[in-house]
Amino acid sequence: MKPFHFQSGLGIPALQFLASIHFDRRLYQEDIEGSIAHAKMLARQGIISQNEAELIIGGLKAIGEEIERGEFLFKTELEDIHINIESRLWEKIGEIAGKLHTARSRNDQIALDLRLFTRKAIQESIAKVKELQLALVEKAEAYQTAIIPGYTHLQPAQPILLAHHLLAYFEMLQRDIERFKDCLKRTEVMPLGSGALAGVPYPVDRCFLAQELGFPQISQNSLDAVSDRDFIIEYQLAASLTIMHLSRLAEELVIWSSAEFGFITIDEAYSSGSSIMPQKRNPDIAELVRGKTGRVYGHLLALLTTMKSLPLAYNRDMQEDKEGFFDTVDTLLSCLGIFVGMIRTIRINVERLRQSAEQSYLMATDVADYLVHKGMPFRQAHNLVSELVEYAQTQGKRLEQLGLDEYWHFSPLFSEDIAEITLESSIAARDIVGGTAPEEVKKQIERAKRIIKDSS
Amino acid sequence: MKPFHFQSGLGIPALQFLASIHFDRRLYQEDIEGSIAHAKMLARQGIISQNEAELIIGGLKAIGEEIERGEFLFKTELEDIHINIESRLWEKIGEIAGKLHTARSRNDQIALDLRLFTRKAIQESIAKVKELQLALVEKAEAYQTAIIPGYTHLQPAQPILLAHHLLAYFEMLQRDIERFKDCLKRTEVMPLGSGALAGVPYPVDRCFLAQELGFPQISQNSLDAVSDRDFIIEYQLAASLTIMHLSRLAEELVIWSSAEFGFITIDEAYSSGSSIMPQKRNPDIAELVRGKTGRVYGHLLALLTTMKSLPLAYNRDMQEDKEGFFDTVDTLLSCLGIFVGMIRTIRINVERLRQSAEQSYLMATDVADYLVHKGMPFRQAHNLVSELVEYAQTQGKRLEQLGLDEYWHFSPLFSEDIAEITLESSIAARDIVGGTAPEEVKKQIERAKRIIKDSS
Amino acid sequence: MKPFHFQSGLGIPALQFLASIHFDRRLYQEDIEGSIAHAKMLARQGIISQNEAELIIGGLKAIGEEIERGEFLFKTELEDIHINIESRLWEKIGEIAGKLHTARSRNDQIALDLRLFTRKAIQESIAKVKELQLALVEKAEAYQTAIIPGYTHLQPAQPILLAHHLLAYFEMLQRDIERFKDCLKRTEVMPLGSGALAGVPYPVDRCFLAQELGFPQISQNSLDAVSDRDFIIEYQLAASLTIMHLSRLAEELVIWSSAEFGFITIDEAYSSGSSIMPQKRNPDIAELVRGKTGRVYGHLLALLTTMKSLPLAYNRDMQEDKEGFFDTVDTLLSCLGIFVGMIRTIRINVERLRQSAEQSYLMATDVADYLVHKGMPFRQAHNLVSELVEYAQTQGKRLEQLGLDEYWHFSPLFSEDIAEITLESSIAARDIVGGTAPEEVKKQIERAKRIIKDSS
Amino acid sequence: MKPFHFQSGLGIPALQFLASIHFDRRLYQEDIEGSIAHAKMLARQGIISQNEAELIIGGLKAIGEEIERGEFLFKTELEDIHINIESRLWEKIGEIAGKLHTARSRNDQIALDLRLFTRKAIQESIAKVKELQLALVEKAEAYQTAIIPGYTHLQPAQPILLAHHLLAYFEMLQRDIERFKDCLKRTEVMPLGSGALAGVPYPVDRCFLAQELGFPQISQNSLDAVSDRDFIIEYQLAASLTIMHLSRLAEELVIWSSAEFGFITIDEAYSSGSSIMPQKRNPDIAELVRGKTGRVYGHLLALLTTMKSLPLAYNRDMQEDKEGFFDTVDTLLSCLGIFVGMIRTIRINVERLRQSAEQSYLMATDVADYLVHKGMPFRQAHNLVSELVEYAQTQGKRLEQLGLDEYWHFSPLFSEDIAEITLESSIAARDIVGGTAPEEVKKQIERAKRIIKDSS
Repeated sequence: MKPFHFQSGLGIPALQFLASIHFDRRLYQEDIEGSIAHAKMLARQGIISQNEAELIIGGLKAIGEEIERGEFLFKTELEDIHINIESRLWEKIGEIAGKLHTARSRNDQIALDLRLFTRKAIQESIAKVKELQLALVEKAEAYQTAIIPGYTHLQPAQPILLAHHLLAYFEMLQRDIERFKDCLKRTEVMPLGSGALAGVPYPVDRCFLAQELGFPQISQNSLDAVSDRDFIIEYQLAASLTIMHLSRLAEELVIWSSAEFGFITIDEAYSSGSSIMPQKRNPDIAELVRGKTGRVYGHLLALLTTMKSLPLAYNRDMQEDKEGFFDTVDTLLSCLGIFVGMIRTIRINVERLRQSAEQSYLMATDVADYLVHKGMPFRQAHNLVSELVEYAQTQGKRLEQLGLDEYWHFSPLFSEDIAEITLESSIAARDIVGGTAPEEVKKQIERAKRIIKDSS
Repeated sequence: MKPFHFQSGLGIPALQFLASIHFDRRLYQEDIEGSIAHAKMLARQGIISQNEAELIIGGLKAIGEEIERGEFLFKTELEDIHINIESRLWEKIGEIAGKLHTARSRNDQIALDLRLFTRKAIQESIAKVKELQLALVEKAEAYQTAIIPGYTHLQPAQPILLAHHLLAYFEMLQRDIERFKDCLKRTEVMPLGSGALAGVPYPVDRCFLAQELGFPQISQNSLDAVSDRDFIIEYQLAASLTIMHLSRLAEELVIWSSAEFGFITIDEAYSSGSSIMPQKRNPDIAELVRGKTGRVYGHLLALLTTMKSLPLAYNRDMQEDKEGFFDTVDTLLSCLGIFVGMIRTIRINVERLRQSAEQSYLMATDVADYLVHKGMPFRQAHNLVSELVEYAQTQGKRLEQLGLDEYWHFSPLFSEDIAEITLESSIAARDIVGGTAPEEVKKQIERAKRIIKDSS
Repeated sequence: MKPFHFQSGLGIPALQFLASIHFDRRLYQEDIEGSIAHAKMLARQGIISQNEAELIIGGLKAIGEEIERGEFLFKTELEDIHINIESRLWEKIGEIAGKLHTARSRNDQIALDLRLFTRKAIQESIAKVKELQLALVEKAEAYQTAIIPGYTHLQPAQPILLAHHLLAYFEMLQRDIERFKDCLKRTEVMPLGSGALAGVPYPVDRCFLAQELGFPQISQNSLDAVSDRDFIIEYQLAASLTIMHLSRLAEELVIWSSAEFGFITIDEAYSSGSSIMPQKRNPDIAELVRGKTGRVYGHLLALLTTMKSLPLAYNRDMQEDKEGFFDTVDTLLSCLGIFVGMIRTIRINVERLRQSAEQSYLMATDVADYLVHKGMPFRQAHNLVSELVEYAQTQGKRLEQLGLDEYWHFSPLFSEDIAEITLESSIAARDIVGGTAPEEVKKQIERAKRIIKDSS
Repeated sequence: MKPFHFQSGLGIPALQFLASIHFDRRLYQEDIEGSIAHAKMLARQGIISQNEAELIIGGLKAIGEEIERGEFLFKTELEDIHINIESRLWEKIGEIAGKLHTARSRNDQIALDLRLFTRKAIQESIAKVKELQLALVEKAEAYQTAIIPGYTHLQPAQPILLAHHLLAYFEMLQRDIERFKDCLKRTEVMPLGSGALAGVPYPVDRCFLAQELGFPQISQNSLDAVSDRDFIIEYQLAASLTIMHLSRLAEELVIWSSAEFGFITIDEAYSSGSSIMPQKRNPDIAELVRGKTGRVYGHLLALLTTMKSLPLAYNRDMQEDKEGFFDTVDTLLSCLGIFVGMIRTIRINVERLRQSAEQSYLMATDVADYLVHKGMPFRQAHNLVSELVEYAQTQGKRLEQLGLDEYWHFSPLFSEDIAEITLESSIAARDIVGGTAPEEVKKQIERAKRIIKDSS
């Protein structure tokens, strides 16, 4: 039997520089899955015999198992996962292995492998995002009455429900899911049949391949099919937005767990001690996730940069599409996963939240609104309350501690009912869709749970 | 009448540093449109009187016209477009102007303005992408029989139709359109009613507002609504991919218009001369578009960076969402627009294309396929042809100039029909969907035209 | 007299797309300065007559004044600043103007203009950084005894002097200055004489030009000289690091001015009110500077991307070197400038700082060190103190409130002198170079003042 | 003997998420080197005994050897390289191991390790850049008379020497070296003694440590010392510029090795074949290096993003400083290394270069200069030659094929000596410093060789 022959002719330094097997071996399942579908199709179209197809498929499956068991020897001199598997197939079933390459090139093969991998990455990302959504919604539900200062510019602005705050992240993550789903539409496009760049001169059944692989569409231009990496970049953008959202939550967790804020306590299982300062519990997880935002952004920019100005069709530059992408997927999944556990176990210091809410002049807006309700134009009311707050600060009083005579000093529109403005009344007044009023937040919790459930 | 009172209390250096009117004035139409809808809603809900609403709306329309006519004096001390317009409204209709601010804050107002602007930007971007698609398809149609070498690694690989090559860009641009449309779904979400961050304590009708402004959805969380800039980042990613595609086409145009390739001639109206080298015509447009890729990527990174780690809800950092974004929109629209004109007027040097196709060994793959059809395993055929080409090169002959006896030297499987392998036969053989065969390309041209037309 | 003739042959859309006069007009001073030096040199070498040189120089100076007075009409059809000025010179002094272009092309001219501009940008950047250093050092000096918790992970770790904290920024800014200076070495390289790309065929005196323009070096390769934009990228990296440092300070100012921390009060002139929440004073300046970090990073990436893969020598892509760069310079200078004013007027709430320092277990490390001094291995001491702190927390006591008997419960090594461990003793003990001990910090303040002064 | 005790208290998921040993193990040499110096210093200062120091140093050296031999078991539960080594030291020499941690924290320890590593990375980068410079200079020297068209806009502009072209890259790389050296100044700053953030309360001798480790400076502020990662970012920028330069050269190699240009032949050892197109030799190395530009830029932006807005001092985000950085170092060194081999073995197709140079109108500028020398103003000469070239093109002639009568048709200033304008004369005329004239290029080759030699 003639041995498998692969020879790039490269010298050893070039071979080592160009080899991708140390990272693209990760695609072995996808490569085998794609090859099995291809073999089936070849047989179905009579390009190879049914018997040959069975031999090939049996060989491929056996190789898959070898890899799973850790018994497969990946060889650098065989450059990439495709050649490694093909070479092994040759060892197992002889020359027939060569027929698998009929009507296919490494260019459409890698395009397929990447699409299969991306599909899986999207599905796993969505699942993990959902888990985090659930953790947030459950936490919101558990603390439905807790009041927290709502901040703008990190200055206390208006009282809100903590649950309302947590649900803001539910919304962000829901958009993330939608973006991943949109990306999936452009990922599930079957490229086989494109050959090296011009299409293959064989009567391949591309629709059968698509069906076999679970792809609803086939690519419409062979040149584009082998040189398109948009779907990876799009995944990376979706991941960048997701981790950006995590970084915002992480920042809040870091600030909230500071001694000065003291709003939350991160569970010991998720916060580490210091090697030199025994009293400290550090929000390391939140910090590291926040820090990993840079990495995910960096990989997005890396691939955008790599793809810039590449002439059609395939260029070796495109081999750079994998490592950063793989790392983005791993990073995102692990950050989401660790956040799920951390959020679930966080303890909210409800008393401290309320104390902080009470110490600020959070009802100032409500007092202005009170005056507007009584007929004062908005801007005028705003200016008046500004002076009122300044007066109260000078007196060292909270607004509810001022007497009606003091209020009258500023406007005769004030009457006894000013005492009805409280943290609770302020929150309850915001009872429109999306507002912080308890019944609205309750509805949103129900809606969120429904969305998570429906789409599972 | 009490004059309009706006006082940030800022010193002049801080005021100049913080003022955004020099760039957010661009949102005046959106700001007025949003305010008119808000006034209508306030009247409808009885929060202001019908008469007040009419006065406000009349005043806003008059201000819009003043701005259009260039008669509006934008003032830095009024910081931004919202206050500039409100102040002018106050001048025109007096204190009633203040009522427009009822149940609204600058935070939800700017969120709305940006969404209205982004919607328009998306619509214009899609329209321009379509124009470029059409220019490419028309060029493809005009040169349906022209053969060009298909390249991988910028090395001639297989013959393809020029039209096939051009249609690859149609596909890329079609994905760009789909991404812009997906982004639109997340842009058309009505944020008014969110107030500063907690929702407004007024019985506003958010669905009426959405309907009035043509938005199919309303936001579901007020904190998220005022601190969400995902839609801008998503637009910027869509724009980054679009200009990345343009950069690839630009690179090809630069290379193709080089003296050595000589494939195309860019019209004089779109290529500039040299100040010192009179004989040159430079592909400046293509180069500058390629160069502008950096700018668009940069703005994407900028906003991703700015949004990283921001606690909820609004922070002044977010004022940085506009300038880069506006520049991205302008850059993308102008690059697309100029490409339309340039592509339409490009002349293809068909003879030169063919000459280049003939001089390479582009049919080598077909010869290998020929042997596979005759029963040789693929890898073996590949190796044999490799030796055959090497032999031909040594002899200074093209493959079709070799005699059958020379072919036999390599394999007895060759017979007279080897002469039937030509550029045309090679192309015709790739007659699967997405392949380069003339009838397939013709179908794709029709499909492309249909897509462009249907979605207009 | 024959009129000035400049005709790119471009159509109007292309002309508008390619014209750079709307942004490169900013280089008019540099362009004139460079042209004057060139004219002097041409005369000195006898390439033009002395009389011609005087006419040219007189004309250029007059044009410079026209521009200063706002009386110069910049024309888009003349594309860029070079042609605009040359055309005007032609109007003023006739055909002789054309001689100025002898031995020079737009490629080396723009290279020179950019280097002159960058030199000025570097000098101004350094000057502004110094101003900020001084503001920080003065603030440090004014609060030499104030104690603040030193944080890691935003958790209080050890007591430090506020002055020590502020001086950390002095160090960062000092590195920034050094980077700008290093960048200057590669900026001050005189490129004239490079012509379009190959060098000029005239006996120009490049060293005279360098001397005239104050450049210590001349470029050594004409191709490189016209296609090198490293110095701009290098400036942008130095600016990126500088604004990254500002973003760290900005973050601290935002956190420190929160109600919960309450460490500082930003002056009213540098903090803005809220449109809807009258009680708030927002750290807008700090936030906006923090937000502008994105912009500066973005411009760095943009030019790196643009320059990627450009073949030699000049390509039109390189026109993209200016707008982002100009914006980076403006952004950096304005951010530094506004920080100077803000830092100078910040009020430190010393009592609040101390209170915060006392409430944490900041001396835990010192207690561990105490045990080490008494012979316990470090790790063991660390673990013991960890348990001690836990005990104290349970008891609701600060460490200094524990009795010696309680200490003995943990180790017999404790003795009366444990009471000597205080915030002050902890700080004083760190009296190595770079440590937080008062005398060391005082030395560093002196050193910092000396450095600022010496290099002015 | 009490066993080594390290317990972060983290749960397993958090531990796995936070552990860095899988990548920071790479710093084992630096960690051991730093610890040995620290132990020596502790003994010298009498903080530990000489005997203890010897035990510790002996243990550390033995551990280093274990790691070298692959006999060291790295443990995830020990988180990082520091604890892994310390734990092993404890196993080897018992409790005394704990004393090594006296007067040191993980924060200053990792700062030191990174600086030691960066110093080595800089030295290796400079050495590799020099090798590439030498390869370019040797190639330039070997082809000193070869003429190539000089391009702007990828259009042939003026004839130049190939050697001149190659030397442009020498210049770029020389700036790269200078940047690495500048970065070294800010890297070689000894941080030990900074402790966790405030400085250590022990009489450590920081200058001795600096001397021992070969650092000319010590850090001046402990907070800054533990939170400064500028030197890594600066390395990454220097690396980004270096690979940007490589990407330009790579782009030229790809274009030059295209069939249409045919200027060079990349050696078989450095160019790979196609799996489906046997006739192709692809410039894979050049492409992959060009593609890796994205990765290096991405890592730069990643760390800039990570460091943005971090409050002082150490935050866990900073753990992200290593992986991207390590990959940048590896990428840069391997790209430089592979380019050295590829450049050395490239064959220049001198005939093809000349042919290309002759076919363009490269002497047009010289003809314009000829007229200027005869007294015509530059702009006028330029316009005239433009018309002349157009005429020649119409006639299908090269300029040197035109008769004097045809020249006279355009200007009477032409005379017989117009025939003296040749490719060689054009090149020879540019004999200023940095110009393309043979003797100038020869001088530059000598200068380059001297620079490479001097600094080795």
